[in-house]
Amino acid sequence: MRANLAASGAAAPPVTVKLIVEGEEESGSEHFAALLRRERDRLACDVIVISDTTMWAADVPSMCTGMRGLLPVGVTLTGPVRDLHSGSFGGGVPNPLHAMAALLAGLHDEQERVTLPRFYDRVLPLSDTERDLIAKLPFDEKQWLAEAGESGAAHGEQGFSTLERIWARPTAEINGMWGGHTGPGNKTIIPRAAHAKISFRLVADQDPADVAAAFREYVAAWTPDGLTAEITVLPAVRPCPSPIDSVAVQAGRRAMQRAFGREVLFTKEGGSGPEADLAEILDAPLVFIAVGLDSDRIHAPNESADISLLLRGAETSAYLWDELAAADLR
Amino acid sequence: MRANLAASGAAAPPVTVKLIVEGEEESGSEHFAALLRRERDRLACDVIVISDTTMWAADVPSMCTGMRGLLPVGVTLTGPVRDLHSGSFGGGVPNPLHAMAALLAGLHDEQERVTLPRFYDRVLPLSDTERDLIAKLPFDEKQWLAEAGESGAAHGEQGFSTLERIWARPTAEINGMWGGHTGPGNKTIIPRAAHAKISFRLVADQDPADVAAAFREYVAAWTPDGLTAEITVLPAVRPCPSPIDSVAVQAGRRAMQRAFGREVLFTKEGGSGPEADLAEILDAPLVFIAVGLDSDRIHAPNESADISLLLRGAETSAYLWDELAAADLR
Repeated sequence: MRANLAASGAAAPPVTVKLIVEGEEESGSEHFAALLRRERDRLACDVIVISDTTMWAADVPSMCTGMRGLLPVGVTLTGPVRDLHSGSFGGGVPNPLHAMAALLAGLHDEQERVTLPRFYDRVLPLSDTERDLIAKLPFDEKQWLAEAGESGAAHGEQGFSTLERIWARPTAEINGMWGGHTGPGNKTIIPRAAHAKISFRLVADQDPADVAAAFREYVAAWTPDGLTAEITVLPAVRPCPSPIDSVAVQAGRRAMQRAFGREVLFTKEGGSGPEADLAEILDAPLVFIAVGLDSDRIHAPNESADISLLLRGAETSAYLWDELAAADLR
Repeated sequence: MRANLAASGAAAPPVTVKLIVEGEEESGSEHFAALLRRERDRLACDVIVISDTTMWAADVPSMCTGMRGLLPVGVTLTGPVRDLHSGSFGGGVPNPLHAMAALLAGLHDEQERVTLPRFYDRVLPLSDTERDLIAKLPFDEKQWLAEAGESGAAHGEQGFSTLERIWARPTAEINGMWGGHTGPGNKTIIPRAAHAKISFRLVADQDPADVAAAFREYVAAWTPDGLTAEITVLPAVRPCPSPIDSVAVQAGRRAMQRAFGREVLFTKEGGSGPEADLAEILDAPLVFIAVGLDSDRIHAPNESADISLLLRGAETSAYLWDELAAADLR
């Protein structure tokens, strides 16, 4: 648990604070889960407070209420023993590029929903409250699209706003695909293989292992006779929720509202850290309280922090211990 | 016109023979059409006889009755100004790889027919006679699939045999596609562009310019808002027919049957030569008479020719002049 330990004026906080510093996150947290399991008893707690997210803006205090997980996979479809001349074979044998295009195109239906079997079975729906709070954020879609270099409209799963799509809904994204002749001019071949890299963004309570199994089924169903499929599953990150109606999150929100003197809103983040391990192994709810901004340029040259926000964060922490002590966390 | 000029015993053939040697074919025949146009009057003729194809087998004499044309195209779909992080934008903006996969998958319908507008409008259907004659060829599909390295079944447009598919039906074949992260591991990006190279095999009377226009329409219809498409059209080859029921082809067949002493069957070929220019500019029917075999290894080390077949070819030519003289070519 990384937390700002600001004295609240009293000699000691009204709750027991245990501090854990995760120093391995930027290199994949390879040993973190094992450490948590080994030290589970020492780390036992009622709430996990994490300070590794950002606020919407300096004048829009907010808490993160969930991080999407990530399942990266690769797939290769192989057909002929070598590239074939399309004059002799074209139209008569399956082309791995055609099969791959169909497989990739089939990942979404007409509502831009992901078509993997059982994909949405464990997706927690957005509550009306969450949707209302997301809608309250001063989101400038045009500005956001301009950052993406898009001149056209936003695009995604039907029935959801842009922020809902990128925060609270699972996705399937093709990150790369290749096969056949990619150089200048023309080469009339049926290539021997087609490749793609895909990543699934997952939301609570989707389990990467379930989605990987569903992807294997999906690929098997989309591999025509005469081609063989090979699948790679890379290390996954589980999604992790921090529900806005949890007692712990409500306590955190009150603390932050006291420090900032205005309504605290909610965001979600892409997420790639070990937060899901913390929640699962320590079996306690997550509360994200942090006062960084996207403009702090984390990990980039000239990284910075706003001192006045840091002080508000310290104040929030001081209130938080009181709020948590007063809350019924059981 | 490349032809074997064998004396038939008489002092002079009963028809006027004009000989044209095309020495530029292997480098794309860049100047051939202009030459034909310039010398059209000198080259005026009733029949064009070409010796540039192969027979089915040494013991299965056959004539080629058509060559497929070829239209190679390229398409690039471009979206964001740079690769975007899929954690921040995934699910909210169009991904060029998705759009490309859909565009490529959409090229065929469930019957494996090409979905370009008007694509089949000018396709000459196979006659029952042609289908019967193709079915007579001793084609071993298993052996052919083994050459392609395929363990599974043949695959292609429904309602047609493998030979019909590769000889007499137009196709759309993806020859290459690429975009995004193609290296090791995973990179959770929405890439800025997706690329594909496609070639259309065309049959008479499809016009490459019509198909290129239809492809532009098709791509425009499949390019979602927020992406832009760029199309490249490479030099095309028109398809060229030599209908089996034409008087000239029938005369050629009789000549070949006299020389070989058995029924002459019909094949078609992929084709990439300037035959269509000859037929169009000289406005005369094509007759393909040649006695090469695939096993001659043309253009490869140890290229060879079977002397006994060469002599049969010479004999065929001698009979051909008589048959053409006796035929009503008008």
